[in-house]
Amino acid sequence: MTSPNATRGFPDSEFAARTRLAQERMESDGLDGLLVMTEPEVQYFTGFQSLFWQSPTRPWFVFVPATGKPIAIIPEIGANLMRQSWLDDIRTWSAPAPKDDGISLLTDLLTPLSRIGVMKGHETHLRMPLGDWERLIAALPGLQIADATGLVQGLRMVKSAAEIEKLSHICAIGSATFAQVPQMAHEGMPLDDLFRAFRREALAQGADGAPYVVGASASGGYADVISPPDATPLAAGDILMLDTGLVCDGYYCDFDRNWAIGHADDTAKRAYDVLWRATEAGLQAARSGNTCRDLFLAMSGVIGEMDDSGGDIGRLGHGLGLQLTEQPSHAAFDTTPLQENMVLTLEPSLSYGDGLMMVHEENIVVTLNGGHLLSTRAAPDLPVI
Amino acid sequence: MTSPNATRGFPDSEFAARTRLAQERMESDGLDGLLVMTEPEVQYFTGFQSLFWQSPTRPWFVFVPATGKPIAIIPEIGANLMRQSWLDDIRTWSAPAPKDDGISLLTDLLTPLSRIGVMKGHETHLRMPLGDWERLIAALPGLQIADATGLVQGLRMVKSAAEIEKLSHICAIGSATFAQVPQMAHEGMPLDDLFRAFRREALAQGADGAPYVVGASASGGYADVISPPDATPLAAGDILMLDTGLVCDGYYCDFDRNWAIGHADDTAKRAYDVLWRATEAGLQAARSGNTCRDLFLAMSGVIGEMDDSGGDIGRLGHGLGLQLTEQPSHAAFDTTPLQENMVLTLEPSLSYGDGLMMVHEENIVVTLNGGHLLSTRAAPDLPVI
Repeated sequence: MTSPNATRGFPDSEFAARTRLAQERMESDGLDGLLVMTEPEVQYFTGFQSLFWQSPTRPWFVFVPATGKPIAIIPEIGANLMRQSWLDDIRTWSAPAPKDDGISLLTDLLTPLSRIGVMKGHETHLRMPLGDWERLIAALPGLQIADATGLVQGLRMVKSAAEIEKLSHICAIGSATFAQVPQMAHEGMPLDDLFRAFRREALAQGADGAPYVVGASASGGYADVISPPDATPLAAGDILMLDTGLVCDGYYCDFDRNWAIGHADDTAKRAYDVLWRATEAGLQAARSGNTCRDLFLAMSGVIGEMDDSGGDIGRLGHGLGLQLTEQPSHAAFDTTPLQENMVLTLEPSLSYGDGLMMVHEENIVVTLNGGHLLSTRAAPDLPVI
Repeated sequence: MTSPNATRGFPDSEFAARTRLAQERMESDGLDGLLVMTEPEVQYFTGFQSLFWQSPTRPWFVFVPATGKPIAIIPEIGANLMRQSWLDDIRTWSAPAPKDDGISLLTDLLTPLSRIGVMKGHETHLRMPLGDWERLIAALPGLQIADATGLVQGLRMVKSAAEIEKLSHICAIGSATFAQVPQMAHEGMPLDDLFRAFRREALAQGADGAPYVVGASASGGYADVISPPDATPLAAGDILMLDTGLVCDGYYCDFDRNWAIGHADDTAKRAYDVLWRATEAGLQAARSGNTCRDLFLAMSGVIGEMDDSGGDIGRLGHGLGLQLTEQPSHAAFDTTPLQENMVLTLEPSLSYGDGLMMVHEENIVVTLNGGHLLSTRAAPDLPVI
């Protein structure tokens, strides 16, 4: 087992710093407040961590005012846990309550304000019933709603030293888990048994959970990277890929590894080599001053040696933190400037042969000089099990 | 390990039957179509299963027309997997694409229609950016949007024989996992280690994943049922509770168990006894002809022997299936008639002592004569480890 995370959570100063930065940007944007309702945003401003988000029944709200600490408007079932956070003002109702699931509490809070921010842009969802949102807006005819997606995502993209420590910890657990795969996988093993063994190993290595384990194993290569496993046995000549999002203390790793079972053909070896070198190009390009687009172009230049189709995944990596995938995107459309202490995945992929694909992935921190690896670098040649 | 699930997925006839029922109700409600975008609904109508939903980046849409098979409007990364479903019409785009994440494809599809249903009621979310939703609606000025929450939830509440088989399977895995807890838990064991051991055991018993494991252990009783674990060691005199949502082939169990570590005081024993009998009352009342409110009243009548506060959880159980928690709610506000083949949790809880609470939970199928247990019934007296 990797060394345990020294402490869970963060000191209050971490949340105070996040809130202060948000409030500075809110002032620039002319916002009287910011209303968030999705798990990572609630966690970001309060530290509130619970698997209970998996139940869709109850909405949860946190309001960041122009000054002072955030205010929680949450179901009574979460009050005890939220009281352990740095917040002072926690307003609750007995939920579920279909006729008024927090709406009158929100209305009271927001009525005095002129203009607030809500996340309504790319990669966001409305985690409350649309009908309740419409009723809330109708009850606040004088309130302007601005899109605060860029404000919040911009804050979350750049990690603090304490966040990078947590990300480094879970990436180490991921690396230690992948290192065991050659011991656990063997010809004839059903793929779904391997997935279970992988998850069990990740927990043994110290992960709190292994929510995301996807992959494939098929002769000469795989055609899909998001399917659940079936019971097909691993066979000689397969290319096996496992991609995982493990979590510890709320922070995720997200990287993958490829292996050949028994032996590999030259095309698969070449695809592996091209992607390995594309990742190297990404590591070089992942320095402050460049943009996500630059990072995309650096990797796609190498991928183009073998495939210039652009692939099906739509990007070559993304942000990482409280979510398995976060902003920004390494894509031609994303000109976000890279900044020191962004934590990113590098995820070059290519298509080859008759509908096959391969994907590599590493997790890094952006520095002045390029990407600093959080995952243990994949072997330069396709490993054979 | 419990006997493996014979087959994954469902025959096409299952999805055809679900779609036909939806279309009958759509006709009654005057709907030209139904647009869904959340994981369980997409899975319900197509069989599409992927952990990739954990990434918030890309929206996914399925449209159920007035006649014929559903139509998928999805990111290219999911095309290969969706092509394995019973659908014929799969429209894709290269996502992420912040300027047009499926919106023009949706606009083309919906422009000829007059009135469609979207889920916007209790226990729903808008799983796409609110800004994109606003743009979509603005591009379709002639389209009426009706709330189809009741339509879809009403269908999903009543399970088919094939669904009940899958739910029975994962409940058996849950029961087998809980049966191992007295062997894995011991005085001095840190609670977070027990959570990891529990998850590992669930995977060994055949679960695909153990996404939801919550609980607590504290002297004389616990105060909270949604917190993540810390490293506090189990101590003599603790009441330990574990509550889990395990998943296999897309279907969840959701039940809990309580134990005393070393010994228990009389108050905790009494709370356990009251809740055990409240569950018995729930089992009697869980028959077609009664309502959710009747079920709530049957359980709360027994709970009232020790606590008439109503508690913090807001209800005494809920539906179960493709989600850890589904409609309906066993609460005074929910007059949904119980129907044969609904799968439900019975989850009586009470508050006692100085801020303590206890919760029991079983999983059942509604029959003509009462609840048929899918979970192995908890022991009638508080078990001691």
